[in-house]
Amino acid sequence: MSKLSKLAILGGTGPQGRGLAMRFAKAGVSVVIGSRDGNRAAEISDEMNALLPEGSVQIEGMDNVRATQTADEMVILSVPYSAHNATLNELKETLSGKILIDIVVPLAPKNPKAVVMPKEGSATEEAQALLGDGIPVVGALHNVSAVTLNQLEQQINCDVLVCGNQLDAKKKVMALVEKLGVNTYNAGLAESARCIEALTPILIRLNISKEVPFSHAGVTIAPPVH
Amino acid sequence: MSKLSKLAILGGTGPQGRGLAMRFAKAGVSVVIGSRDGNRAAEISDEMNALLPEGSVQIEGMDNVRATQTADEMVILSVPYSAHNATLNELKETLSGKILIDIVVPLAPKNPKAVVMPKEGSATEEAQALLGDGIPVVGALHNVSAVTLNQLEQQINCDVLVCGNQLDAKKKVMALVEKLGVNTYNAGLAESARCIEALTPILIRLNISKEVPFSHAGVTIAPPVH
Repeated sequence: MSKLSKLAILGGTGPQGRGLAMRFAKAGVSVVIGSRDGNRAAEISDEMNALLPEGSVQIEGMDNVRATQTADEMVILSVPYSAHNATLNELKETLSGKILIDIVVPLAPKNPKAVVMPKEGSATEEAQALLGDGIPVVGALHNVSAVTLNQLEQQINCDVLVCGNQLDAKKKVMALVEKLGVNTYNAGLAESARCIEALTPILIRLNISKEVPFSHAGVTIAPPVH
Repeated sequence: MSKLSKLAILGGTGPQGRGLAMRFAKAGVSVVIGSRDGNRAAEISDEMNALLPEGSVQIEGMDNVRATQTADEMVILSVPYSAHNATLNELKETLSGKILIDIVVPLAPKNPKAVVMPKEGSATEEAQALLGDGIPVVGALHNVSAVTLNQLEQQINCDVLVCGNQLDAKKKVMALVEKLGVNTYNAGLAESARCIEALTPILIRLNISKEVPFSHAGVTIAPPVH
C-alpha cells in the first residue's frame, strides 16, 4: 500500500487510457498512468495536466511496473489486445493484493468490426485465468468511445456494464466508475465479458457505417416506456 | 408463394411469439402462428384475436409446417432453444425461398442468467449452418422482453440489433421490425449474434436482481450527450 490513494491506468498513453485518466483526475481521483516507456508516460501526463480544468488532481506518469506498485488498490488495464497477456505476465507479482480492471476488447487485428474470441471466451476471463483467483479481475468500460472520453466537457453517453467473479471487487469498481457520472450495472460473472467485449465492434461498425445520425454510439439500459 | 402476404411465427403460442403476433397484427401485418399442435395454435389465435384492438388484422393458427408453407416470405422462429434444431430440421425443405428470422436465445437449461454457446457460436449461426446458404437467416428481436411485448398499449423500450450474412434479407427484416415502432440497427454478420443473444441473460439478470428500478430492461443505442 502506498501512502496516497492512487488509481493506476496501464497503457495510459493510448486514447482510451488518456481519456479515462483525465476524466478520473477531473472527478478528484488521484491517477498515475503507466506505459512501457516511463519517460513517455511522464511527458503525456504533463500534456494531460495542461488540459485539465482547474481543481483537478494532477496526473503522474511512470513505467507500468512502478505505476502498478504505486496504485493502492485498483489498476486499470488499457493496452491494445496484442499487449494484453504480455503486460499481465510482467505484472502478475506486482498486482498481488490489488484489483485488475480489464477494459481491453480483443478486436480482430485487421478488423475493428469483429472480435477474435480468446480461448477462455473473453479478455477478462483470460486475465483471470492468467492471474489466478487471488487477484480479482473485473471487466468494465469496454463500450465507451475514446473520442467521447477525451471530450471532457461532454457527458458520457452510455451505461457501464461491469462483470467479474468476485462481488466485492465488482462493487468497488462500480463505485469508482460512477465517479465519472455514469450508471453502472452488475452484468454478472466474468463470462458476461464475452458479450460486453463483443458489443464494442458492433458499436464501431455502426459508427463507421454512418447508419446512426451521430458518431461514437453507446449502449444504455432502458426502462419500459409507457 | 401464397396469395396473401403473410408472416409466420413458429412457436407462436409461447409468450414471445404471442406478443410478437399481436404487435404485428395490430400494426397491420397479416400473421399466422405455428405450433407443433395445430389445434392449439388455432385456439391461441382465437384468444389473441379477442385481445386485439379494433382494426387489427386477424391472426390465424395452424401447425408449424402449414404455417411455414403459408408464409410468403418471412418466418420467425420463436421456439425454446431446446426445440431450435429439431424444428429447423423438420422445416428445412419448406423454408426454401423464404427468410428465417431467428429470435431464439440459447439460454442455459436451468439458468436463464447464462447462455450455453452452441458449437457454431450462436443460435443464428447454428440455424444458418443447418439450413445452408440458400436460406438466409437473420438474427433479430432477441432482447425484447416478452412481458413488454404482451402489454400492447406500452411502447417497446429498446432498439433491435439485426445481424446476418445476407444484406438484402437483413434490410427486409429491418423494415418488417420497424413496423413495431422501434429503431433497428444493422449489427453486422451472423457472428454478431454471439453478443446479441448473450445480452438477453444479462438483462434477465438485471431484472431478477432488482438492481434496476424497473423490470423488463431493454438496450438502446445512445447518441453522444452534450
